[in-house]
Amino acid sequence: MKLSELAERLGCRLEGDGDIEIVRIAGIKEAGPGDLTFLANSKYEKLLASTRAAAVILKEGPVCAAACLRTPQPYLAFAAAVRLFAPDSRPPDGVHPLAAVAADARLDAHVSVGAFVWIGPGAAVGAGTVIHPNATIGEGAIIGRDCVIHSNVSIRERVVIGDRVILQNGVVVGGDGYGFVRRADGTHEKIPQTAAVIIEDDVELGANTTVDRPAVGETRIRRGTKIDNLVMIAHGVSVGRNVLMAAQVGVAGSTDIGDEVVFGGQVGVGGHLTIGRGAVAVGQSGVTNSVDPGAMVSGYPAIDSREWRRSSAVFRRLPELKRRIEELEAKVAALMGDEDDEGADIT
Amino acid sequence: MKLSELAERLGCRLEGDGDIEIVRIAGIKEAGPGDLTFLANSKYEKLLASTRAAAVILKEGPVCAAACLRTPQPYLAFAAAVRLFAPDSRPPDGVHPLAAVAADARLDAHVSVGAFVWIGPGAAVGAGTVIHPNATIGEGAIIGRDCVIHSNVSIRERVVIGDRVILQNGVVVGGDGYGFVRRADGTHEKIPQTAAVIIEDDVELGANTTVDRPAVGETRIRRGTKIDNLVMIAHGVSVGRNVLMAAQVGVAGSTDIGDEVVFGGQVGVGGHLTIGRGAVAVGQSGVTNSVDPGAMVSGYPAIDSREWRRSSAVFRRLPELKRRIEELEAKVAALMGDEDDEGADIT
Amino acid sequence: MKLSELAERLGCRLEGDGDIEIVRIAGIKEAGPGDLTFLANSKYEKLLASTRAAAVILKEGPVCAAACLRTPQPYLAFAAAVRLFAPDSRPPDGVHPLAAVAADARLDAHVSVGAFVWIGPGAAVGAGTVIHPNATIGEGAIIGRDCVIHSNVSIRERVVIGDRVILQNGVVVGGDGYGFVRRADGTHEKIPQTAAVIIEDDVELGANTTVDRPAVGETRIRRGTKIDNLVMIAHGVSVGRNVLMAAQVGVAGSTDIGDEVVFGGQVGVGGHLTIGRGAVAVGQSGVTNSVDPGAMVSGYPAIDSREWRRSSAVFRRLPELKRRIEELEAKVAALMGDEDDEGADIT
Repeated sequence: MKLSELAERLGCRLEGDGDIEIVRIAGIKEAGPGDLTFLANSKYEKLLASTRAAAVILKEGPVCAAACLRTPQPYLAFAAAVRLFAPDSRPPDGVHPLAAVAADARLDAHVSVGAFVWIGPGAAVGAGTVIHPNATIGEGAIIGRDCVIHSNVSIRERVVIGDRVILQNGVVVGGDGYGFVRRADGTHEKIPQTAAVIIEDDVELGANTTVDRPAVGETRIRRGTKIDNLVMIAHGVSVGRNVLMAAQVGVAGSTDIGDEVVFGGQVGVGGHLTIGRGAVAVGQSGVTNSVDPGAMVSGYPAIDSREWRRSSAVFRRLPELKRRIEELEAKVAALMGDEDDEGADIT
Repeated sequence: MKLSELAERLGCRLEGDGDIEIVRIAGIKEAGPGDLTFLANSKYEKLLASTRAAAVILKEGPVCAAACLRTPQPYLAFAAAVRLFAPDSRPPDGVHPLAAVAADARLDAHVSVGAFVWIGPGAAVGAGTVIHPNATIGEGAIIGRDCVIHSNVSIRERVVIGDRVILQNGVVVGGDGYGFVRRADGTHEKIPQTAAVIIEDDVELGANTTVDRPAVGETRIRRGTKIDNLVMIAHGVSVGRNVLMAAQVGVAGSTDIGDEVVFGGQVGVGGHLTIGRGAVAVGQSGVTNSVDPGAMVSGYPAIDSREWRRSSAVFRRLPELKRRIEELEAKVAALMGDEDDEGADIT
Repeated sequence: MKLSELAERLGCRLEGDGDIEIVRIAGIKEAGPGDLTFLANSKYEKLLASTRAAAVILKEGPVCAAACLRTPQPYLAFAAAVRLFAPDSRPPDGVHPLAAVAADARLDAHVSVGAFVWIGPGAAVGAGTVIHPNATIGEGAIIGRDCVIHSNVSIRERVVIGDRVILQNGVVVGGDGYGFVRRADGTHEKIPQTAAVIIEDDVELGANTTVDRPAVGETRIRRGTKIDNLVMIAHGVSVGRNVLMAAQVGVAGSTDIGDEVVFGGQVGVGGHLTIGRGAVAVGQSGVTNSVDPGAMVSGYPAIDSREWRRSSAVFRRLPELKRRIEELEAKVAALMGDEDDEGADIT
C-alpha cells in the first residue's frame, strides 16, 4: 500500500514521499525498507535517527529522517495500521462435518464452527461468530454476534456471552465456583454452583483464564473489560466496564470491581471486597481491604502506593537503621553512665 | 416446592406460612418473591430487615419478617437447598458416536462419554462417571465411579482416579514433572517422569489446575481434598485428606502436606518441605520452611501470622521510625556536644 | 536387567553382585528388593544405612550396604537409568481416522496424529513428531522433528516450533498478546497481534503454560529452555537459551531474558526489562528493574538477594526495634530534661 493511501486511511499528515510502498508494520528497532513503524513512547525518540524504517507514525515535533505520518495519537494510528496489514485468519462460514451440534441448537447461518466443536442442546450462536476447533459450548449457553472463540475453550452450560467477545485458547467460563461447607467430621460438602455467568459485549479473556460460576446470584464481567492470561475470576465476582487485568491476577469470591479499575500482573484480591471505580493495584500487590475510587495501592497488605513506596525505601535500609539504633543505645548508655554510674534504666 | 416440604427435607424448624411456593434459591440481597435465601454470616444480619425473600434459612435467634427455616447449621441447609433446586445437567448414559474409545478400554455400562473424547488402550471407567466432550483419557488410566470429568480435561497415561472425583474443565493430571539434570555444557537432560499419580476419592480440582507426575515414587492427592483453579501441584507432592487450596497456589516438588491444611490464594510452597496437619498459610504467603501442625503462617518468608502482623504494622510506620531515629541522633549529638565539644564517637 | 549390564550402559563402576536383577527405579525411601535407587543429595546420605534397595547409584566415597553403581554424576546416571526403564508411550505412526488434517498440510510419513487433532491449511509437521488427541495446529504453523505435542494443546496460526520440543497438555502458543490502546471515551481498541512466535529446538513448556504473540516483531524462546506449568510469557518477550522457569512465573511484554537465567516459582517480571545472562530471581520475587548478568535478586521490588535477606531478617524484629526507639526517646527526654526542664525540642 502506498504511504499516501495509508496517510489518508489512518488520518495522518504525510511528510515525505507518498509513493513509498509499505509492505509491513514493524517495531522501530527491527524495521527495514518497506516497513512502517511508530513512535508512541518518547523514551525511544533517540531511535528515530537510526531506524531503517521507510516511514514512521509519530506526533508532530520530533525530527525524523524517514518519511512521517504525523498524528496526535500515534499509538491509535499504529493499531489501525496493524489492522490494515493483518492477515485475515477468519475461517469460512459453515459447520465442519466433524463438529457435533445438538439438533435443537440455534446457529445463525453466518457462523463458522470448526472441527471437533461440541455445541450442546438449546445453545445459541449469533451471526458472525467463529468457534475454533475443539471448543465446547455447553447446554443452553448463549453466544452473541461476531465473537471469536478460540480452540480448546470451554463454555459451560447456560453461560451468556455478549457480542464481539474474544476468548483466547483454553479459557474456561462457568466452571463450578469453589464453594464447600465443612461438615462436623472435617470433610466438605459441595454447594452446587448452578447460577448465572454473564460476559458482556466487547470483553476479551486471555489464554487459560477461568471465570467461575456461583451458587446463587451471578458472576458478571461488564462491557469492554480486557483480561490477560491465566487470570482467576471467582464465583459471584462482579467486574465493571473497561477494566484491565494483567496476567495471573486472582480475584476471590463475591468481590465487586468498579469500572476502569486496573490490576497489574499477579495481583491478588480478597473476597467480599469493593474496589472503587478507577482504582489501581500495582503488580503483585495483595488487596485485603476494599479500595476507594481512584486510589492506587501496592504491597501486601496493599496500602496507598506512595505510602508503600516510602516504607519500601526504608525497608532496604533496615540493617543500617538497626545499626544506628545500636549506636544510639551505646551513646545514651554512656551519657546516662556519666550522670549515673549505675547505668540504671530510667524508664 | 412448598416451604413446609422444604423444611422437612432440610431438617429445619418452619416459622411462618408453610404454603409459600419456593421457586429459586437466591442471595439475600437479590432475593425476591418466591425465593428462599439464607443467613450464615452474622455480618449480614442487618439485611434481614430489608430482604424481599419469601423465606430465610437461619439459626435460632434473629428476628426476621419473612418466613423462616431455623437450623443450627444454616450454611449446610443452604447447600442442601441449592442441591434440591439445581438443574440436572447429567447427560444420558452412552458413548457418543464421535468419541474414540480403544477396543480394550473397559467402560462400565452406566457411563456417559461425550463427543470427541479419546479413551486410550487399557483405560477403565467406572459406573456413573460422566466424561464431557473433548476430554482425553490416556492409555491405562483408571477412573472410578460417579466421577465428573469436564470438557477439555487431560488425564495422562496410567493416572489413577478414585470415586466421586470432580475435575473442572482444562485440568491436567499426570503431565511430566519439571525434572532436569544440568549437563556440563549448560544444557539440561530431561529425567523421564513416568511414575504414579493418584487422585483419591471425593477430590475436586478446579479449572486449569495441573497435577504433575514424578520420575519415581508418586504424586498423591488424598481423599476429600478440594483444590481451586489454576493451582500447580508439582511432581512427588503428597497432599493429605480434606485439604483446601484456594486459586493459583503453587506447591513445589516432593513436599508433604498434612491432612486439613488450608492454603489461601496464590500461596507458594517450596520443595521438600513438610506442612503439618491443620496448618494454615495466609493468601500470597511464601512458605520456605516446614510448618508445624496447626500453625498459621503469613508473608515471605512465611512466619507465624501474629508475629508477621506485628512486623507488618511497623512496616507501614517505617518512614516515621526513620525520622524518630534521626531526631534521636540529633538530640544525642547535642547532648554529647554539651559534654564533649569535639562530638567524638564514643562507641 | 542385570546390574552388571546397567553398570555398563550407565558408565558406572559396579561394586557388589552384578547378577542382581533390577526391575524398577525408585526413590531411596520407597525402594525395595529389585529396585535401583540413587543418592545425589548428600543430605540424604544417612538413608544409605536403611534403604532396602537392591542397588544404589552414588558417587565414590560413602559406604553403602547395598550393591553400588559409582559415578561422579549420580543424578545424570539416574536420569539415564529412568530412561532405560521408562515405558514406551509413543503411539504408532499414522493419522487417526477421526483427525481433521487440511488437504494442503504437509505431514512427514513418520508422524503420529491422534484422534480429534485439527491441523490447519498450510501447516507442516516433521518426522518423528507425535501429536496427541484434541490438540489443534493452526493454519500455517510449522512443527519440527521429534516433537511431542500433548493433548489439548493449542498451537495458533503461523507459530514456528523447532525440533525435539515438548509441549505438555493445555499449552497455548501464539494466543493474542494483551495489546490495547485506550480511546478517549475510556474504552480500549485491540491492536491485532499477528506477528511471529518462535519456539526453538529442545524447549519444553509445562502444562497450561501460555506464550503470547506480539503485534510486531516476535516472541521467541531459545534453544534448550525449560519452562514449568502455568507460566505466562507475554508478547514480544525474548527468552534466551537454557533458561529455567519454575511454575507460575509471569513475564510481561517485550522483556529480554538472557541465556541460563533461572526464575523460581511465582516470580513476576515487569515489561521492557533486560535480565542479564545467568541472573537468578528467587521464588515469588517481583522484578521491576533490569537485572545485571549473574546477579541474584529477591523480594518486591527485587533487590540483591544478600541485601534483601539482611533487611528481611530485620523485618522480623521490627516490633522490637520500635520498642527500643521508644526506650531511647524516653531516656533522651530524661537526659534532656536534666539539662533543660522545659524539654524543648532542640532539632
